[in-house]
Amino acid sequence: MSDYSPARPCRLEAVPGWDIETDVAVVGFGAAGSCAALEARAAGAEVAVFEVASAGGGSAAWSGGEVYVGGSGGTEVQRAADFPDTTEAFERYLTMAGGPAADAERVALYARHGVEHFEWLKAQDVPFKGTYLPGKWIEPTTDDTLLWSGSEQAWPFRDQAAPAPRGHTARHVGWGGGKVLMQALCERAEETGARVHVGARALCLIVDAEGAVCGLVVRLDGRAQYVRARGGVVLCAGGFITNRAMVERFAPEALACRQVVSGGHDDGVGIRMGISVGGATLNMQEFFATLPFFPPESLVKGIFVNTRGQRFINEDCYHGRVAHYVLRQPERKAWLLVDNAIFARPVIEPDIEIAAVGESWEEVARELGLPEGALEHSVAEFNRRAAAGEDPDFHKAAEWLRPLDEPPFAALAYSPEDTDFHAFTLGGLATRPEGEVLDADGAAIAGLYAAGRTACGLPRWGEGYSSGLSLGDSTFFGRRAGRQAARRAGAGLVHADEALPSAST
Amino acid sequence: MSDYSPARPCRLEAVPGWDIETDVAVVGFGAAGSCAALEARAAGAEVAVFEVASAGGGSAAWSGGEVYVGGSGGTEVQRAADFPDTTEAFERYLTMAGGPAADAERVALYARHGVEHFEWLKAQDVPFKGTYLPGKWIEPTTDDTLLWSGSEQAWPFRDQAAPAPRGHTARHVGWGGGKVLMQALCERAEETGARVHVGARALCLIVDAEGAVCGLVVRLDGRAQYVRARGGVVLCAGGFITNRAMVERFAPEALACRQVVSGGHDDGVGIRMGISVGGATLNMQEFFATLPFFPPESLVKGIFVNTRGQRFINEDCYHGRVAHYVLRQPERKAWLLVDNAIFARPVIEPDIEIAAVGESWEEVARELGLPEGALEHSVAEFNRRAAAGEDPDFHKAAEWLRPLDEPPFAALAYSPEDTDFHAFTLGGLATRPEGEVLDADGAAIAGLYAAGRTACGLPRWGEGYSSGLSLGDSTFFGRRAGRQAARRAGAGLVHADEALPSAST
Repeated sequence: MSDYSPARPCRLEAVPGWDIETDVAVVGFGAAGSCAALEARAAGAEVAVFEVASAGGGSAAWSGGEVYVGGSGGTEVQRAADFPDTTEAFERYLTMAGGPAADAERVALYARHGVEHFEWLKAQDVPFKGTYLPGKWIEPTTDDTLLWSGSEQAWPFRDQAAPAPRGHTARHVGWGGGKVLMQALCERAEETGARVHVGARALCLIVDAEGAVCGLVVRLDGRAQYVRARGGVVLCAGGFITNRAMVERFAPEALACRQVVSGGHDDGVGIRMGISVGGATLNMQEFFATLPFFPPESLVKGIFVNTRGQRFINEDCYHGRVAHYVLRQPERKAWLLVDNAIFARPVIEPDIEIAAVGESWEEVARELGLPEGALEHSVAEFNRRAAAGEDPDFHKAAEWLRPLDEPPFAALAYSPEDTDFHAFTLGGLATRPEGEVLDADGAAIAGLYAAGRTACGLPRWGEGYSSGLSLGDSTFFGRRAGRQAARRAGAGLVHADEALPSAST
Repeated sequence: MSDYSPARPCRLEAVPGWDIETDVAVVGFGAAGSCAALEARAAGAEVAVFEVASAGGGSAAWSGGEVYVGGSGGTEVQRAADFPDTTEAFERYLTMAGGPAADAERVALYARHGVEHFEWLKAQDVPFKGTYLPGKWIEPTTDDTLLWSGSEQAWPFRDQAAPAPRGHTARHVGWGGGKVLMQALCERAEETGARVHVGARALCLIVDAEGAVCGLVVRLDGRAQYVRARGGVVLCAGGFITNRAMVERFAPEALACRQVVSGGHDDGVGIRMGISVGGATLNMQEFFATLPFFPPESLVKGIFVNTRGQRFINEDCYHGRVAHYVLRQPERKAWLLVDNAIFARPVIEPDIEIAAVGESWEEVARELGLPEGALEHSVAEFNRRAAAGEDPDFHKAAEWLRPLDEPPFAALAYSPEDTDFHAFTLGGLATRPEGEVLDADGAAIAGLYAAGRTACGLPRWGEGYSSGLSLGDSTFFGRRAGRQAARRAGAGLVHADEALPSAST
């Protein structure tokens, strides 16, 4: 085999000749890559896409197909369901969801153009039925397509950002709307003339004497081929959750999650190629994690406690936020306490371990081996306040407050040791909103772009994730990266006056 | 000025000629740089050191001068004070202190050779008086030189690693033993013939056609000078806490700490140079943070509560651990509750805000605006158990347990908004224990080494930091990096059979 590595660029002088020449080379044909290809083609550029799998779709094809959009008075779907979303609320929510590392420029841009982006997705023939599904769900299993997909109605989000449902799912009956979304985007990209090479493994970038990226080496048809990209290379190769050595180095806490959310090729090749030419990485330790403990939503009325018998979160927030709080508890242990009235087995984890059952909370506490009186106190306090419709400590919304007072009582084991948490990575290359990969000083590396989970985008904080944020980010910023690379190739010059909307417009 | 940037390497072809030629070029003359220079000289290499300040010492000269060492039956000082430390306990402690990203190889090596390293420091004429100072201190203000400088005696550390004091401080009366340590190391390095250039700003690395580092460009005597380093460049330029733009990008949570622990030049130049040639970074989000709430140690008998009136930590652990737990509480707010018997003003923050005073805990809670009954319950539970000598929830050691029952009562404001937390960064370049900087795939970049806070070393977790870990790491792994660079220059070949101890020996 070759001795190329994504961690080392190939120098232009070492290229024996070009096998493929194009304006824009896109690595990866998932959510970001397909949208990058579409926009680069729309700008008039020649586009070659290199996908390691035998077909397009990427990890997005294995997802629920939710796209998190809103603002601007609401999408057509939001308005039809009487949720007139505002850009201000959307922007505020995204800022809170981004956590300490939220990127104000990216957030502002996305908030302002979310509705427009949704219209664009529809124009690519992604089907959205447009009906609203109330309640707490992970994905719709009906063909409804608008749902509450994050912590919008939960504290502290609801106090600072007027809530609206923003999870827009591709129309599909059952789980897995992602394949519907990706079928549309990939088909459309090919229709517009993007040349897609499947079974093509990116080996490394090619750099010129000034350090600009001018192409890449791919393994295709059994040999190393040299790809010239006049405008640049757009890295849309996903995150790194399937590369366990990388996870161990960069995001070791994600190792607690035994299951990955991935189509199987999130091996970090895009991030590694970016690092190889001086690209800086951001937030490499962050990851989405979850064990969805609902539906059924009755379980949201239970309370989580740790080994000290303390509550630690408002249980009505997004399931991934709960998961991260669990990962931070002593010994990473937590239980969901339920009584007979709300007991059910979670749809996604029906075999969840029932760690304790008893006719009294004392019995449950003893069975769990908790410090004397601690759990009993937590439940008593919760019950007293829930009866009054209050939760002053954790601010769970009134509709989920109900005393846990109907025996028998039970504790469901909700820890990564007891069951399989799912994860994908949120860290990646530092980029501008237009996709340029940035070096250690924040300057753009000529000819290199990234989007999707190869970049550190909108979702930057496991605790703040909402379903649909990654697909929204990947498709929206994938578009911009493709367009920018096309511009650099010169192919887009006819459209030069028709600038993409920026944060300041 | 020049248009060089640490984020972009200079190519060998672009070098007009060498101004300085040496075997080993060391960037930074602090703890890591001085030790790298010493060992490279000991191996027979020519050494040139480039220090941006007007004198050596680095941030280490502004520190307490504590070196965290032990194991192997104990240092001479530990043994004299009757603390026969074991390598196993030392290794276990370092592993716990390293947190989720602890590096087993580095930890094992350091644990095995800690005593030897202490002997080496003494051989460089670093003065250690060798007397033990009992109690809870931040730095000794006497000229005693052995103290408990971490969480050794606190839960959960004490349960898994037999406690021993391991903070070995350079002999000095008053705060700031670091200048004594650094004076010895810097003088010794110059005596051995390392050529030290002060007022020398590293501009960028120089790389050859294969991507190997073969030198650097420095700004010295008012112009760019080209330094050839036959063996390689050793980056010992500190962390990035003084570069607020970098902190904002890479460790935004550290911005809550308004004060920096730095000699003033921790601008990330070493890390940025490493990134420029494909070096991977690790743990860039991690930082040491503290507001030392003791001495006097009576304050350790108080309890911390958050805005929910909940306790969240055993108050007898290391002050930096407490600081990180505070930063994680809702609104980053916490108070230390004290009664009349233990009240005192902390030595380091005598003007700390007293947020509430009352004749009862109800009064204090009301003044703080906490949810009704919460703080009162926490104090009552603590008092009941403290009276029995127990703390089943947080495991504070019995000697610090005493009911808070003597009015008046007070709450000291211990939040970054109320007072100045101090911080420095723990993230940096990925390296091997021998100092080689690693690329995205974990392969060594030829000719590039790093140590000290330019590298991600032993201390990797703000919550697990102990005083002396960074100086111990910097001096020990600085030595190895210098030695390895000397070897590569060929200068060390006469010593080739005399290998440095490795983790497997």
